[in-house]
Amino acid sequence: MPRPSSPLLSPEIIGSAGLALARAGEPFGVNAIARELGVRPSSLYNHVDGMDGILELMRGELVEGYRVEWHGEPWDEFVLAVLRTQRRMYADHPQLVPLLVGKTITHPAVIAAYDDLASVLVDGGFPDDEVLSVIAVIDAFAIGFGLDLASPDEVWQPEGGTRTLGRLIDGAERGSARSDRTFELGVGLLLDSLRARLVGTPPVTGQASSRF
Amino acid sequence: MPRPSSPLLSPEIIGSAGLALARAGEPFGVNAIARELGVRPSSLYNHVDGMDGILELMRGELVEGYRVEWHGEPWDEFVLAVLRTQRRMYADHPQLVPLLVGKTITHPAVIAAYDDLASVLVDGGFPDDEVLSVIAVIDAFAIGFGLDLASPDEVWQPEGGTRTLGRLIDGAERGSARSDRTFELGVGLLLDSLRARLVGTPPVTGQASSRF
Repeated sequence: MPRPSSPLLSPEIIGSAGLALARAGEPFGVNAIARELGVRPSSLYNHVDGMDGILELMRGELVEGYRVEWHGEPWDEFVLAVLRTQRRMYADHPQLVPLLVGKTITHPAVIAAYDDLASVLVDGGFPDDEVLSVIAVIDAFAIGFGLDLASPDEVWQPEGGTRTLGRLIDGAERGSARSDRTFELGVGLLLDSLRARLVGTPPVTGQASSRF
Repeated sequence: MPRPSSPLLSPEIIGSAGLALARAGEPFGVNAIARELGVRPSSLYNHVDGMDGILELMRGELVEGYRVEWHGEPWDEFVLAVLRTQRRMYADHPQLVPLLVGKTITHPAVIAAYDDLASVLVDGGFPDDEVLSVIAVIDAFAIGFGLDLASPDEVWQPEGGTRTLGRLIDGAERGSARSDRTFELGVGLLLDSLRARLVGTPPVTGQASSRF
């Protein structure tokens, strides 16, 4: 009987295996991935540079699975689509968030996604020296709202009396209805503010501002 | 020689021990905390209801350490102070974020902090049925910017050519200067938008909107 050919390894296969293990709540280090793929740990090292390399491959697989292509729509529509998709991505993988945010991004697919966003914002009229800050704000938003979507159905459960919170909770929506409403409010506030900044409309800077 | 009296246990002591272990990157379950405090695991169960209870005590200790008291300032100043402090809190404990967001909040100190925020927003003029959404937006912001602050000095390192991203990175700030600038932009956008909403100024809803 011929020996079975050894399984093909590639960065994509390694990244996918790591991501699948992480999703299942399993360890996803070199040994665990090698066991999952039925290869020796040493053969992984031909494709990946230790744990940092594995995390970056996992990020690549993750981001490619939630990639939003740009089809010529205005920057604010594109940003909204990116925010919706990334919110879902982070909500589906909350445990990966602290690992990924702590690492420099090098994966070509992830760089390409950020390059698209940067290009759309520059083309949309944002000044060069502001675009990376706007991107970081968008990122922070997506992460924050992704984790909000991963919240339990009941966010607060006061056991004693409160001045205001308990009264507000009594009549409020719960679960994904609550989180969706929060996201719509947040995304509306962000996009309105970015549009106003771009158009050059001076924002309202205090409660005493005049109304037009 | 008299037996040493057994160490006093309290929810605060257990929460602090768990938080100290988590900060040090150590496991912080019942057994680890009991070992750290020099008591039997069974004696912890007089004060805490398993892992969920421990996490909630840790959240209480964490939030009390970053508590912002309200001293009568306007809602937007208070929100800014809360955002600054919570950003630091999440940046200091990124690994706790996914654990904490997934759990219903019951700790009296944390409920009290949210109750303060809710009261300040209601007093500031936000309608009752909007305050919990505004609070969730503020939370999402704090978490997102906290994790942004925990980013590495170099967020992106493209290994190939890019259309826009590489050019923007070349001239950009790095490290905490980058993150601080992002936070100031983001917080400005958020507060401007919230103020505009409160005052009732219709936001700019598209690039083609008229200017006044």
